[in-house]
Amino acid sequence: MLSRDQLASARGRAHEYLARAGIVLTPAEAAAIEVADFGLGDLERTGLQLVTYVNTARVCAKELVLFPGQTCPEHRHPPVDGGPGKEETFRCRLGTVYLYVEGEGDPAGALCRPPAGREHTYTVWREIILQPGEQHTIPPDTLHWFQAGAAGAVVSEFSTRSRDESDVFTDPRIVRVPAC
Amino acid sequence: MLSRDQLASARGRAHEYLARAGIVLTPAEAAAIEVADFGLGDLERTGLQLVTYVNTARVCAKELVLFPGQTCPEHRHPPVDGGPGKEETFRCRLGTVYLYVEGEGDPAGALCRPPAGREHTYTVWREIILQPGEQHTIPPDTLHWFQAGAAGAVVSEFSTRSRDESDVFTDPRIVRVPAC
Repeated sequence: MLSRDQLASARGRAHEYLARAGIVLTPAEAAAIEVADFGLGDLERTGLQLVTYVNTARVCAKELVLFPGQTCPEHRHPPVDGGPGKEETFRCRLGTVYLYVEGEGDPAGALCRPPAGREHTYTVWREIILQPGEQHTIPPDTLHWFQAGAAGAVVSEFSTRSRDESDVFTDPRIVRVPAC
Repeated sequence: MLSRDQLASARGRAHEYLARAGIVLTPAEAAAIEVADFGLGDLERTGLQLVTYVNTARVCAKELVLFPGQTCPEHRHPPVDGGPGKEETFRCRLGTVYLYVEGEGDPAGALCRPPAGREHTYTVWREIILQPGEQHTIPPDTLHWFQAGAAGAVVSEFSTRSRDESDVFTDPRIVRVPAC
C-alpha cells in the first residue's frame, strides 16, 4: 500500500502534468487524484494516476496521467450484467503513450519493455503510438496495456461506465481495487 | 448557409480558442471543425463550433467552442430507438459558459439574454455558471441552452451517442442538420 507521503507526492506530480496539458482541476478534484499502484508496491514502474470527471450508468470520462516510463498493466474489460463490457477511447494530450493491444505484433521489435520481473504477464504486442491529438478506440473485452515515453503522458479516456472491480488483469498478483 | 469565407474564418477562430485551452488537434481535425449556424444565418449570435473526437453506438466525446456571447439554442435529446435519449456532461475548459436547464429560474434575473428576435423560443431559466474545471450533467430529454461570456468559451462534452438529426429545438426555424 502507498504511504501518505507517496500518495501526496504522486498527486502533486500528476497535478503538474495535468496543468502542463492545460487541464484545470477544481481544488477538490486535485486533492482527490486517484493513485493506483495495482497492489504491486512499485508505483514508479507499474502505476497510474486518474481523475474521473463523470461515471454514470452510461458514460465515463477520465484523465489519465503516467509518469516517465510508467506502465498501466495488461487487462481487459469483460462483459458485465448482460452488457458487452467497457469500450474506451484514449486520446493523447501531452507526451507520448505507447499502447499495446491484441493483434499482430512482435515483442522483439516493440519500443517498450514491460516492468522488470513481470514480463510473463504481458502477452499482446500490436503497437500503437499516440502523440498529442492522436487517439485510438479499444473494443470491449480486448487485452491492452500502455506505457508513457520518457516525458510522461496525459491521456483523456472517453468510455462507457467504468467498473474497476470487474477488470481482468493478466498478472494474478494485481489488485486493482484495494480491500481496505 | 455559411459562405466559404465565413466557414474558414469560424474554423480558424475556433482553432485559436482550442489552442488557448491547450487542446491539440491533428491537421485533419482542424480542417474539419464543424460550424453550425442552425439555419438562422446569424452565426455570431446563434451558433456553435464543434470537434467530434469519437461517436460510437455507445459513447461520444466532443469539444465545443463558443465565440463571445454566442448562444447554442434551446433543445432537448428525446428517446430514440427504445433508448432513453442522449445524456451529456459539459465541462468548461476556457472562459465562462452560462448554461440554462429546466427547473426553478427567473428570466428577469438571469445573466444572459437570448439572441434578439428569438426570445420567445427560450423557455428554461435554471442558471448554472461554469468556469474552467467546473461541470454539469444534463439528463436525457431535458431542455437546455447555453451562452458564452464576453471572452468566449471552450467546453468538453462527454455523452452517449450523438444523433443531431433527432434533437428537438424549441425554435421551429432551426435546422440542425442542413439538407445539403
